[in-house]
Parts: sequence; C-alpha cells; structure tokens
Amino acid sequence: MLKPVLALAALALAGPSLAQTAAPAPSPADAVDADWRTIPDDELLVMTLRGGHQVFIRLAPRYAPAHVANIRKLAEAHWWDGTSVYRLQDNYVAQWGGGDDKTVLPPTVIANPPAEYEWSRYDGVTTLAKPNSYAAKTGHSADGWPLASDGKSAWLTHCYGMVGVARDMAPSTGSGAELYAVIGHAPRPLDRNIALVGRVVEGIQWLSSLPRGTADLGVYATPPERTPILSVRLASQLPEDERPHFQYRATDNARFAAWLKGRENRTPPFFTVPAGGVDVCNAQAPIRRRPA
Amino acid sequence: MLKPVLALAALALAGPSLAQTAAPAPSPADAVDADWRTIPDDELLVMTLRGGHQVFIRLAPRYAPAHVANIRKLAEAHWWDGTSVYRLQDNYVAQWGGGDDKTVLPPTVIANPPAEYEWSRYDGVTTLAKPNSYAAKTGHSADGWPLASDGKSAWLTHCYGMVGVARDMAPSTGSGAELYAVIGHAPRPLDRNIALVGRVVEGIQWLSSLPRGTADLGVYATPPERTPILSVRLASQLPEDERPHFQYRATDNARFAAWLKGRENRTPPFFTVPAGGVDVCNAQAPIRRRPA
Repeated sequence: MLKPVLALAALALAGPSLAQTAAPAPSPADAVDADWRTIPDDELLVMTLRGGHQVFIRLAPRYAPAHVANIRKLAEAHWWDGTSVYRLQDNYVAQWGGGDDKTVLPPTVIANPPAEYEWSRYDGVTTLAKPNSYAAKTGHSADGWPLASDGKSAWLTHCYGMVGVARDMAPSTGSGAELYAVIGHAPRPLDRNIALVGRVVEGIQWLSSLPRGTADLGVYATPPERTPILSVRLASQLPEDERPHFQYRATDNARFAAWLKGRENRTPPFFTVPAGGVDVCNAQAPIRRRPA
Repeated sequence: MLKPVLALAALALAGPSLAQTAAPAPSPADAVDADWRTIPDDELLVMTLRGGHQVFIRLAPRYAPAHVANIRKLAEAHWWDGTSVYRLQDNYVAQWGGGDDKTVLPPTVIANPPAEYEWSRYDGVTTLAKPNSYAAKTGHSADGWPLASDGKSAWLTHCYGMVGVARDMAPSTGSGAELYAVIGHAPRPLDRNIALVGRVVEGIQWLSSLPRGTADLGVYATPPERTPILSVRLASQLPEDERPHFQYRATDNARFAAWLKGRENRTPPFFTVPAGGVDVCNAQAPIRRRPA
C-alpha cells in the first residue's frame, strides 16, 4: 500500500511529466517473475460493501490457525452478510461485524480461541538495520508478513492495513466475528495483546475514507451511519472464473534485500538525507494483482 | 489525536457502559490546569473547507521561521481562498494549495526559503526509553512538539497530523503555498528532507476521510474531485469573539513524564504484555480546546 515513490505533488503538477521520462534502468532491487507468489484462494477474503466496493484481505493461517479457522467458518456460513462497519476511529481502526445486533455464532465457531498473539520462533528471513521502539528485531517472513521479536518470542506487527480480532478485556481473545483494520499510525502497543489474522491487500480506501464515528471509541452514534456489508466470502467460495488473484513478493532473495536497503536509504534527487533505517511498517512487502 | 483508551469495540458495545462506571482515581499522570498552555492567535491557522468543515493547524514558527512567515503572509493575503485539496494519497498525505491553477505568489512571499529541516540543538525535555528506526533519540519539546536527534542535529518528526511544505526536487524547499498533512503511518523517511511547519490539532478527519485520488501520487484525476477551500486565516485575523482557542499540554513536568511512562507500558485489564517503549508518533502531546 505504500508507494515506492515519495516525491510530493508539486513534482507531479509542475515538474516534467513522469510519463514522458524514460523508464528507469533495471535495478538489483527489482523483483523477477518467480518472486511473485499467488495467495491461495482459501487464504483470501473478499468483503463487499455498499456500492459494490470491495476490500480484499489476505489471511495468516500459519500465525493464527484457530482464529482463521473461525473466520473461514463465518465466511462459509455467510455470517457477515447484512452486518456492518460500525466503528471508524480516526488514526486508529475501522471495525466491522455483528456488533451488538448479531451475536449468535455458528455452532462450529469457537467463541474464545487460544491467544494466538505470539509464538516461540522468529521465522523471519530479513532483519532491519535498526531496532525500533517496540522490538529489538523486526523483519519479514519469507512469505511477506511483518514480524517482530524480542529474542524470546516473535509476533506479527500492527502495521497499516493489518487486520486483527476485536475482543473484550483479557483473557478474552475474540472469536473473529468482529474484525478491525488499522487505518492510521501503527498502534504497535497492541502487538502481543491481540490476534492479528491478516492484511488488507487492496481496497483499504473503502474503509479508511469512511466518515469518522462520533460516539466513544469512534463507534457510529446511530445505525444509519454504519456502512452495510453485502457479503464476505473466501475467494475459494466464488465460481472459479470470478476469483480475484493476488500475489505477494517473496522476501527470501537478494532482490528483496536490495529493495529493503533502498527503503532504509532513500536517494536523490528528492531525498538528500538518508535515514539509515526504516520502520517495518514503512517497508511492508509489496502485493500486486496476478498478471493476466 | 490518539485516544488514551485503546480498548476495542466489543468492549463499548457488549461490555458495561463506560459512562456507568465511576471516574478513575486521580493519577500522577494527570495534567494540572497550569500544564495547559494556550496557543497564541498568530500561531493558529483556521482552514475552512466546503461544507464549513474546519481544520485547525498549530504553527511552529520557532522551528521553521521563514516558512511560517510565508504562511502568515499567504493567510493575510487570503491567497488560499478558492484553492483546493487536490491530492489524497491513502496512508500518506492530504495536500492542498494552488496546485497548477494558481502559482503566482504575493510579492512579499519568499519563493524558496532556506532549508529549515533540522537544527543544531536538541531542545527536547523528554527522551523516550528506546531508540527507533529513524533516530537514536526521540522526545518532546517543552511546548509539545515531537522531536528526534542523532546526537548531532535535531528535527521535527513526520507524525500523523503533522503539516509540511510540499516541494519540487532538492534543493527546492517549497514556499509554503502548497502544504500537506500526514494521514497515515508516519512517513519518517521524509524527516530532514522537508520542512515541517505545524500540526493539525483538530479537524484532521475532514482531510483523512476524503476520497482517495486515483491519478499518480494520489492526485485527483479531475478538478471536480477536489475539495474547495473556502478560506484560510490566522486566528489573529478573525474578530476577537470568533477566535478558536486551543491548548497544548506542556511536557516539562513530572506529570507528563508519568503520562509518557504509561504510554510505554500499557496496563491491564486490556493489555497484558507491556511494550516497554513507545514510538514518539504514538505519544504526541495532547491538545484540547481551552475550557470556557
């Protein structure tokens, strides 16, 4: 979701047209075709909002298997159809699900799964140059998830677009029937305190640009302010020729490492002072639609 | 702009009503009246958008005196009236000003001021517990600005809501006629590469919830998509009884230090794993309206 080009708009508006300049020379940071891996159909959630606007979510079954199993069951039961986006808190989260109107879960859904907040092994294949405020070590799994570790355990990080499971006070872990997506500065204090289950890979703007709720915690004050959810489906539930296909960029290769170095040290002519480091949430692994 | 309460919505919806619980006991982290300092009228910009929606921006003349001097002249000349918000890039910036339609500046405005990106002295009075990806040291000035330092120089940080000066390729510094506000994860690689001149203290939602632009860099593809700016004024230009008044929380006291410790280590019952640190952009100094 981050654009690799950070030049600001005066450039696009007053400077020479980008379209008229020659394509840049190939870089060691460029992905090759084999670096793009297609997300399996049963790891992709398609949420359709009022107006037909679609939000596509990659799921993380390897990191939160019990919660993702619940989410699959809820999608298969069409449980979210007719529910809503009922909370929009600026610089924080968009949240959706049954809210207080729909609380009865399908019988196979586990109401309070184990806390899948962290695990014992850091399985990242990249490590960023500098520690950050929340962890000694951050990086990416081979399949593109943002990770952090304190040397003892490891966990997914609350970056922009990441999707988590809303819950009550601990020790509740939430069922997965109420989900949120991060739409502001990464609320990393939530790391290790809540289950992350996925990442919005396209369509976050249909959540991030919604009006902000005015009741406590950004909840909409009245039901008409909510955005209706028409349907939520796994891509695998759709007819084969209607399935969307997304690819993540694999990180276990020298090209991604070179890309990351470039993110740590931005270059002229726009940038003149390189940072020498980058936050994992400013360097999420790229996603694209599978080429036709 | 960050809510001190991070509990997620199931809490607000299904749990006991927050309004029904007793007020929490006083804490050493609570501000006293004297901690709230009123922002001077000539350091507050009032931007009124279509529909009468207002965005209030605190200016930082101490850190970017030449750019803020330009901004004051532009406001006094009513230069922005009739211009627009012409760019909205998701998870990045909202940007406004004349764009390509209005480029002639008032004669007293300096077209390319000196680069006010950093300065020699860290004048922060707080320092956060841990370094982050972009700086060895981060903290707050006594008057509530977020700062970073590498031990040699110091600079304002690109947190959510911070306002900067759009520019062309270096060595352009921008005049201040085109401004942007951060509406996503802090784009800290811009630190020290661009002039920060202020912070949105109220009304950021009128920018952050606008539709996203679909042309390059989030620029709106057609003029009708832009949001008209009705006026931009310094509070000091308004009749005295119409001036809004905001206060920042001073940071040079033990109460703010205690507040910051609390941000570094969130507490039960919602949080069970404290982070032991916080990003400066997750701990911006609070702002409030001056009580009547």
